[in-house]
Amino acid sequence: MEHPVYNSITRPTLVIRKSQALQNIAKVLDKTTSRGILCRPHFKTHQSVEVGNWYRSAGITAITVSSLEMAEKFARDGWRDIIIAFPYNPREAAAIDALARKVQLGILVESTESALHLSQHTTSPINVWIKIDTGYHRTGIFWDNFEAITAVANVLNDSPHLGLTGLLAHAGHTYSVDSPSEVSEIHQASLARLEKINEILSNEGYTSLKISLGDTPTASLVEDLGVFDEFRPGNYIFYDLMQEAIGSCSEQEISLGIACPIVAKHPERREVVIYGGAVHLSKDFLPDGQSSSFGRIAFPSSDGWTQSLQHTKLMRLSQEHGIIKTSSTLFPQFSIGGLVLVLPVHSCLAANLLGGHIKIID
Amino acid sequence: MEHPVYNSITRPTLVIRKSQALQNIAKVLDKTTSRGILCRPHFKTHQSVEVGNWYRSAGITAITVSSLEMAEKFARDGWRDIIIAFPYNPREAAAIDALARKVQLGILVESTESALHLSQHTTSPINVWIKIDTGYHRTGIFWDNFEAITAVANVLNDSPHLGLTGLLAHAGHTYSVDSPSEVSEIHQASLARLEKINEILSNEGYTSLKISLGDTPTASLVEDLGVFDEFRPGNYIFYDLMQEAIGSCSEQEISLGIACPIVAKHPERREVVIYGGAVHLSKDFLPDGQSSSFGRIAFPSSDGWTQSLQHTKLMRLSQEHGIIKTSSTLFPQFSIGGLVLVLPVHSCLAANLLGGHIKIID
Repeated sequence: MEHPVYNSITRPTLVIRKSQALQNIAKVLDKTTSRGILCRPHFKTHQSVEVGNWYRSAGITAITVSSLEMAEKFARDGWRDIIIAFPYNPREAAAIDALARKVQLGILVESTESALHLSQHTTSPINVWIKIDTGYHRTGIFWDNFEAITAVANVLNDSPHLGLTGLLAHAGHTYSVDSPSEVSEIHQASLARLEKINEILSNEGYTSLKISLGDTPTASLVEDLGVFDEFRPGNYIFYDLMQEAIGSCSEQEISLGIACPIVAKHPERREVVIYGGAVHLSKDFLPDGQSSSFGRIAFPSSDGWTQSLQHTKLMRLSQEHGIIKTSSTLFPQFSIGGLVLVLPVHSCLAANLLGGHIKIID
Repeated sequence: MEHPVYNSITRPTLVIRKSQALQNIAKVLDKTTSRGILCRPHFKTHQSVEVGNWYRSAGITAITVSSLEMAEKFARDGWRDIIIAFPYNPREAAAIDALARKVQLGILVESTESALHLSQHTTSPINVWIKIDTGYHRTGIFWDNFEAITAVANVLNDSPHLGLTGLLAHAGHTYSVDSPSEVSEIHQASLARLEKINEILSNEGYTSLKISLGDTPTASLVEDLGVFDEFRPGNYIFYDLMQEAIGSCSEQEISLGIACPIVAKHPERREVVIYGGAVHLSKDFLPDGQSSSFGRIAFPSSDGWTQSLQHTKLMRLSQEHGIIKTSSTLFPQFSIGGLVLVLPVHSCLAANLLGGHIKIID
């Protein structure tokens, strides 16, 4: 028996198992609350007003987003404390200024140039965070470059309306660890580096700065987070195969699947063609032996979906097509007109692509 | 001097050089018209009503799309002859039936099961094409399986309202050739295979069936297309780095770039951070020596953009960030608050992601 939600699905559609998503939300919230840390979840993962309300019901009041557009969307939905966790984009200064009049807005800078531009092109009070690179090497001032960090702090201090709120980092290198214990080591090292900067800035007169960190492997695998101010994981509400590979979750904890119609079968190759391609799932993949996998496959069930199928994977993606390779034993269970669930490699990208097509299983 | 269109760009935005796009449209149309072939361009590449009008002005009256939603969108815009070049999705039968009342609609089937379902769940006249696999092995009945092909033809023949219109193939293996001459060989072989089926079906009484083929490498590299009925390339209006790698186009013929704001610089690594990530560009990449490239980089110019920069590439993508690696010579030319153009690996996916944000340079 399939859950009745599947009856109305005609095209690739996100299916969320709400009870599992709520468990995932609660687990991390318990961990932060018990340490006195503010949980500020990253909403880029779901980008959904409805899912945002689940967080609200759980007691969340502050959120993270990755673009001005997302910030504007959630501000319209009543969220009043929002950090845009992306380097300040000077071309959006006017819209940032307008939004900062309505909500408590956090903006990231990582150079004196950006800090000056922000100061000169806005008038609203804005909470500014200095973005620190604690080892991931994507964005931010490298943590031991105290001179550059202090220079940015000084520019912000000179501004009549900007406030230096704190130091913010994303230890994204927790995504490429070989073992869960490394996640904890990276988190401890990141935190120690931010504390070191905090101490130096404190000697310069910048006291009471906050520290903000956050990523899903740390949220999931580190029992004792330590002492800091704000935590910003996002993916953990849904999880995905990438997180399962890191060890952040079990397959059962993945709360999001993509329901895809079966449109053709090729017995001679044990291949099943689904309506579900790169424009629905993204092209993120995981290595799988000699080849790659774009997702695992399950069948719909009464409470969501089955365990993923053995010897079966989403092997290839075109713009709209997905090609599943399966075993000769399982092949007959796929029927044209039926649905499969794809357990995604990267749930954030799939949710971004399919935001307009969501079904919830309570 | 930058073209004035760039002044208003604040976020990742598709920029189309219209004059180049029109040249690309005209080149293929000349080729088909001179052979008496109907050019039925694939609109999944752009998905834009405005760009569709450029084709209309060039004399195009029939189009290809890859989903029911796209067919409905272009039907609303007045297009009256549309093929959905994707295997029939039984779950969309009702909506297909409704659309077929308004426009001349082409649907693909590749099994008796799908053909029967379509016949039993629709009442409008529909042009049905049998999807043939001429060697790409993604979808379709393999070309030498005459028994299966005839069986589908017989089911369609028994239907009161469906018509067997013809044989349709997509020789997608032209995308993985090692030399341009192979493209021509694949096209000739595909055409010969379809003609063989046509002959056999003709002996069974199915006469006047049409043959439809189409892909961008063939459109670009094969001078003499031969004799058949309809041709369905799509990507050639924009081209991209994948097509340049195949030899379908020069870099100058690429008519689409993605304008992305520069938000941070890391001199110690010669890295530039742009606002432009996987949700804007897709994660399609090309191998580049030991690593990968997600795109080439150019600067805005008065008529579009410069030639792509030497020793510079889009090296890494996150959800919203792109990381450019460049040379120490060029590094100073990137300035925070400025724009770069990304020449995409796969323009269809980028256009799908950024459909709401387009600027045209006349």
